[in-house]
Amino acid sequence: KEQSLLLAAAYVYDAQYNRNIPFETASQAVRLYYLYNHWTMQAATYFFIFIDLSLALFEEPAAYPLPFLATSLVEVMCLLAFFGRLFHFAKVTPRDVFWKDAKNICIMIAILMTLVDLIIYGSLRISNIQSVRWSRPMRPIFLINFAESRQIRRAFRSIRNTLPEITYVFLLFMFSLLMFSLMALKLFGDRNLKTVDGLPYFTDYLSIVFEMYVLVTTANSPDVMMPAYNFSGWYCLFFITYVVINTYIFMSVFLAVVYNNYRKHLKNEIRKLVYMKRRKMVEAFNLLKVKEGAEFVIKEDQWKNLIKLVAPDISTSHRELLLRISDEEQKGHVDKKSFVRLADLLNIQVITMKLRSHPLAIWFPHMYNSASSLFIRSIVQHKGFVWMYDVIILINAVFIALDEKNPFISYAEWVFLSLYIVEILLKLYTYEPRTFFARNQFWNWFDTFIIIAALIATVLNTTLKSVTVYNSQQVLDIVFILRVLRLIRIIDSIQRFRVIMNTLINIVPTMLTFGGLALVVYYIFAIVGMEIFQGKVQFFAGNTSAQHASYCGNPSLKDSAFAHSKYCKNNFNNIVSSFIVLMELTVVNQWHVLASGFALVTHEAAKLFFITFHIVVVIMIINIFVAFILEAFFVEY
Amino acid sequence: KEQSLLLAAAYVYDAQYNRNIPFETASQAVRLYYLYNHWTMQAATYFFIFIDLSLALFEEPAAYPLPFLATSLVEVMCLLAFFGRLFHFAKVTPRDVFWKDAKNICIMIAILMTLVDLIIYGSLRISNIQSVRWSRPMRPIFLINFAESRQIRRAFRSIRNTLPEITYVFLLFMFSLLMFSLMALKLFGDRNLKTVDGLPYFTDYLSIVFEMYVLVTTANSPDVMMPAYNFSGWYCLFFITYVVINTYIFMSVFLAVVYNNYRKHLKNEIRKLVYMKRRKMVEAFNLLKVKEGAEFVIKEDQWKNLIKLVAPDISTSHRELLLRISDEEQKGHVDKKSFVRLADLLNIQVITMKLRSHPLAIWFPHMYNSASSLFIRSIVQHKGFVWMYDVIILINAVFIALDEKNPFISYAEWVFLSLYIVEILLKLYTYEPRTFFARNQFWNWFDTFIIIAALIATVLNTTLKSVTVYNSQQVLDIVFILRVLRLIRIIDSIQRFRVIMNTLINIVPTMLTFGGLALVVYYIFAIVGMEIFQGKVQFFAGNTSAQHASYCGNPSLKDSAFAHSKYCKNNFNNIVSSFIVLMELTVVNQWHVLASGFALVTHEAAKLFFITFHIVVVIMIINIFVAFILEAFFVEY
Ligand code: NA
Repeated sequence: KEQSLLLAAAYVYDAQYNRNIPFETASQAVRLYYLYNHWTMQAATYFFIFIDLSLALFEEPAAYPLPFLATSLVEVMCLLAFFGRLFHFAKVTPRDVFWKDAKNICIMIAILMTLVDLIIYGSLRISNIQSVRWSRPMRPIFLINFAESRQIRRAFRSIRNTLPEITYVFLLFMFSLLMFSLMALKLFGDRNLKTVDGLPYFTDYLSIVFEMYVLVTTANSPDVMMPAYNFSGWYCLFFITYVVINTYIFMSVFLAVVYNNYRKHLKNEIRKLVYMKRRKMVEAFNLLKVKEGAEFVIKEDQWKNLIKLVAPDISTSHRELLLRISDEEQKGHVDKKSFVRLADLLNIQVITMKLRSHPLAIWFPHMYNSASSLFIRSIVQHKGFVWMYDVIILINAVFIALDEKNPFISYAEWVFLSLYIVEILLKLYTYEPRTFFARNQFWNWFDTFIIIAALIATVLNTTLKSVTVYNSQQVLDIVFILRVLRLIRIIDSIQRFRVIMNTLINIVPTMLTFGGLALVVYYIFAIVGMEIFQGKVQFFAGNTSAQHASYCGNPSLKDSAFAHSKYCKNNFNNIVSSFIVLMELTVVNQWHVLASGFALVTHEAAKLFFITFHIVVVIMIINIFVAFILEAFFVEY
Repeated sequence: KEQSLLLAAAYVYDAQYNRNIPFETASQAVRLYYLYNHWTMQAATYFFIFIDLSLALFEEPAAYPLPFLATSLVEVMCLLAFFGRLFHFAKVTPRDVFWKDAKNICIMIAILMTLVDLIIYGSLRISNIQSVRWSRPMRPIFLINFAESRQIRRAFRSIRNTLPEITYVFLLFMFSLLMFSLMALKLFGDRNLKTVDGLPYFTDYLSIVFEMYVLVTTANSPDVMMPAYNFSGWYCLFFITYVVINTYIFMSVFLAVVYNNYRKHLKNEIRKLVYMKRRKMVEAFNLLKVKEGAEFVIKEDQWKNLIKLVAPDISTSHRELLLRISDEEQKGHVDKKSFVRLADLLNIQVITMKLRSHPLAIWFPHMYNSASSLFIRSIVQHKGFVWMYDVIILINAVFIALDEKNPFISYAEWVFLSLYIVEILLKLYTYEPRTFFARNQFWNWFDTFIIIAALIATVLNTTLKSVTVYNSQQVLDIVFILRVLRLIRIIDSIQRFRVIMNTLINIVPTMLTFGGLALVVYYIFAIVGMEIFQGKVQFFAGNTSAQHASYCGNPSLKDSAFAHSKYCKNNFNNIVSSFIVLMELTVVNQWHVLASGFALVTHEAAKLFFITFHIVVVIMIINIFVAFILEAFFVEY
């Protein structure tokens, strides 16, 4: 009896969280399955994944160097944790299912490969032979393939499904690129034209193809056109036709293909999820059903026991509400149709709008309900109170924009801070604190956090100023940022802005999935980029007067656009700066300067690394991101 | 009787072409309405609109100067034509409808204003006072508001409907921009940082706002970040946050809002069109119906008379086919339901796949069906024939890429040209010529046109070369372009490419509407831009050694990025170069260099012109274009 209740609860739990893991139904296995899904185990898995990925910070080339022994020990520890998690999963799920699942095989291979790599690298290191840690780009496999990362996997699946279709469009696009480049070679190659830097213009086919690819990304427009345009006005037609076809039409078609597939795919996934959820609920129902007249039902007390197992944290009133919805006619039992809906009902957040009395009204009823207290509370509740503070915020904005040096203005800062603190205190006096800080009161949380943080930072800053001669810049920066963030509150006063903001806040979870996706791709490119480009470009802080600092410590960069633009800090010398370079490449602008710079310090073929990054991140991932936002916005707005 | 047939035909005609013009039903008025809709009248209207818009080429500042008297006389002539067209329309449509329609009022005001402007400008010119032709930006009104430009008007309506919603998102975006700029001022203003050019970095609020707006368009990334990033690595977080929020999220939200509204609007428009079409058809039916038993119908001979009026050009077999569909049970009459569908049936292109005999088979049957002739025809129809020519194209591509100077290669060009001509001749020998050049055979038309043009151009080029010493570069350029265009044919051999190409070809009409929209906006900005910036930036062709040429003849541009990049030809000195500058601004990259350049030669406020252009064209129009393509692609693909 209790066994089947436990099993049914596991099914409901899986349905509620859209989990789809087949597990053994033996009593022991179900308990193991509960443990497997416990939040501490999941958190631990994520913790080890995080540690494993973070190792790149401490390994050569390191942002914060640690000895190889330390990082490799930590890595082995992570691998052990992954193996343990996988072993646990193997105990939970039926054996044939386990071995058929590509995810598990993937993780095992990744663990094995990493160990082999560690051993080879370690022993070569002992013999003082420099080699490559080739298993490092495989680390994101752990992030993708553990069952918890369902969303990221779905996004990757979406990309994989789009690939065949996008490949054809891409080939057509490449064909167009090659044709136009050929035309450009024929039209401009023999004219002895020069670029702004005095270099020959459009004389070599491969470099024309690169320039034309860059033009698709718009990064060298209109510079790439100017020599030809200055020579003859008619030649601009060539470039305009090219941009219209390749930048506008082809890039829109890429978005269309990605978005179309994304929608199609999403629809399928949702259909599958709904089907799977229903099946789990029916299985749970079958475990607990009893015959009542002509139909099978679940008795009320059994249903309550189930809820206590599935959602132990919800309040009694919430549980009663669920029962009222599930057993509308109050027959004392729940039928199949109502029961199946339970998984969705459990996901609805119930905000208990209890008309709680203010604690002060309970502790000091006389004082709290006195005439003056009532007057204060009516003022705080009045619209004019919000307006007054909107005006204060606007005045504050002007003061912030004014010069900090003036002592009167820095004094005013204290006045504003006090005014904001008074506002929060007054609100807490008027409104019931637990309601004020309810989970859905985003703006109240935001305000309070910003004000308290600003108070702490300002006090800290003043203390540091008076105690030491050293004026802590970091604290001051935080004070500045918090001071400006305070102004954001004014958005909340305008209804339409609030709607848009709420839409944006609601799509944050979707964007976090996307963040995971981006992290995986960035990580792989960063590790590969570090292996190729580490140490080739150096940044010399401060002493920029040194000669070699002007060309990033690499003579190949003399007179390059890379060095002229002072891009030396955009290098692959550690994972942090690699990520920043990749971010700049994602924004696209000036990516050809970066690509050409790294090609100068290595080989022309290095441009392929940057082109690949552009294709993967900008054409695929960013378009998926836009499709994400379009779809999320259509649903939410 | 004949009168009602004429009227019914007018209704059907309107339904077929989705026209919605209320017209008087008197016999005289209907005839006038026929004349109004005659293609020659429409073509004439477009011709005069085209002439009117083209005047900008010849007016000060002119690409091809003409005296003011000439251009103003042509303009008056155009205005007369517009007035005539409007007068004609007034005779056709009921008076109250005419005066209620804002389009007509708009045209009348535009005509009047233009006349007033012409008179004022002319008389001031006689008195030698320089003034502004302020009515010129109003010219696109004629393009938009004549009834023929239904599609462009729909696109503008779509923009207008999007405006309220996008305004709120835009205000929120501006708020974010101003907040981040304030933060940037506080964080970096006092650090004494310098840009690459040695100028103070982020010290002035207004210029920070401009820089940050430029960063949203990505045009100054990562340069705008580098001074801060070189100072401290942590500061890149500020810029990354900014780019993620403002470039990625806000710009995607703009697209989402535009696309969402576009779809909603499109759905409404289509619903309205379908309703209107049905109503017109019902009116036509009511005019011609006779009672047949219990229901009203149209007799077969009456129906045929109607078709002869509505579609005089279709073949008898096509008409019989329509009748078969409309009168399925062959009862000798058409009922209401079938009749209403007629408007759509008429729009379906019927390709008569007559199994025509080849003319040669008729003229020389013995020769055409001889064994050797049959053998040739079977070869041409074989797949291998297509493959062989694909290989020839590829070899041709290699030859084109090789050096032209080699006499052997220039000889090979003749060989390839002959091969292509032989291919076309063989195909014409094998396939029936009228079927080969049917309207839907895009690729056959394309091939033949390219080959014949290449033949003519090559012969012309050779003749010019041998006759005169002067080697005509223009002809040679055309030869080059045609030579490369020939290679495009290879796309047609691959099924998947053909599908994508057909999709792209099918969305061309939609894109032409968009082209009209872009033309209107470009025209207005070009005229305004010329009034503000004409003559401020000069381009000196050839003699670039002259000192003033290096700074575009304007000392304000000394040491500016504008002059360094040799952008002198990007000016507003005539409508052609204005359009090219606007095209470059649409592509966005380096737009801040252009904006700053024109601000240097006039006033900082000139940047507003460029920001406005960016908001109107890139945020509104390009997003509408992407929405166009997304929707068209979803429908077609
Ligand atoms: Na750009």
